[in-house]
Amino acid sequence: MGTRDRIIDAAEQAIHEFGIAGATTRRVAGQAGCSEALLYKHFASKEELFLAVLLERMPALGPALSRLRLSVGEGDVSANLTAFTAMALEFYTRAAAIAGGVLADPPLLTGFRKMLAEAGSGPHVPIEALAEILRAEQRAGRIDPAVDAGAAAAMLMGACFHRANLANFVDLPDDDETWAAAIVGTLVR
Amino acid sequence: MGTRDRIIDAAEQAIHEFGIAGATTRRVAGQAGCSEALLYKHFASKEELFLAVLLERMPALGPALSRLRLSVGEGDVSANLTAFTAMALEFYTRAAAIAGGVLADPPLLTGFRKMLAEAGSGPHVPIEALAEILRAEQRAGRIDPAVDAGAAAAMLMGACFHRANLANFVDLPDDDETWAAAIVGTLVR
Repeated sequence: MGTRDRIIDAAEQAIHEFGIAGATTRRVAGQAGCSEALLYKHFASKEELFLAVLLERMPALGPALSRLRLSVGEGDVSANLTAFTAMALEFYTRAAAIAGGVLADPPLLTGFRKMLAEAGSGPHVPIEALAEILRAEQRAGRIDPAVDAGAAAAMLMGACFHRANLANFVDLPDDDETWAAAIVGTLVR
Repeated sequence: MGTRDRIIDAAEQAIHEFGIAGATTRRVAGQAGCSEALLYKHFASKEELFLAVLLERMPALGPALSRLRLSVGEGDVSANLTAFTAMALEFYTRAAAIAGGVLADPPLLTGFRKMLAEAGSGPHVPIEALAEILRAEQRAGRIDPAVDAGAAAAMLMGACFHRANLANFVDLPDDDETWAAAIVGTLVR
């Protein structure tokens, strides 16, 4: 394993154990068995390192969206969307601690915001991608054309993001599968 | 203003300025013009102080839910829900930094979780309250009875919570009012 991968692994582990506030570059470098100077050779900033953890170590939303896009007009639309919802919930569950930590750290948030703006990226992008897919299913006659696809996408993703956060604070009733099916049921009825 | 209120104000200000990680009891006490010992006389722990900020200084969800409950069967159901959605968005916007900070700090999260469990409370409670109201509107014949009220409530609240978080990372299109109306439109159609 290369140094870069070792650093990303160590960062993920440190975030899990100590929270993002406690995942200092010093600690991460120590755990990865390299110097802080070497860490900064691979990642210009703490933000860049955390973004790499988000993008490279989380079960990605991108592939799940690609699969959903390929299934437009194919198979059972409810089943397709339920499987996607379960994946989105899993993604947000792992991403919640990083997203929360960035939000709770104003200088880190400023750096993140700038980096996302420069990349034309951000956490709203998957919502827009899902809205596009819902519109395609509407054109295929499989979802009520009266549904506002943008709002529906915001609600599906929002429900997942919220549940991923809630699960940290309280024990939730319902298993994730049952829950995902109920969410999709409000859109496809 | 009493010492307790001065401490809560100082904590809210410190969270806003320095993030929850930087809102140390030392800094909060200093800003409130009291000793850390006096702070701990009013709040047994940092968790208890942050919970007080959440419950006593945020535009509360509770009153908004009470108003919505009183309006069941009265006026325009879409307008009632849209006004509530805007309030929920405002609440989560102010609560996001605290919720995120707690999530990013494992020991703080453990304390919070224990405190919520003992109080039988938690961030899922408003979702259940909204679901009850939606069921009452279904019985009043104003919302499609085929909608799963629990899932619909999770989606409405989740969309608000997610948007409150997103807004910290990117500039969102659409004003909040337009957005809230579109969200409600997917449930009342």
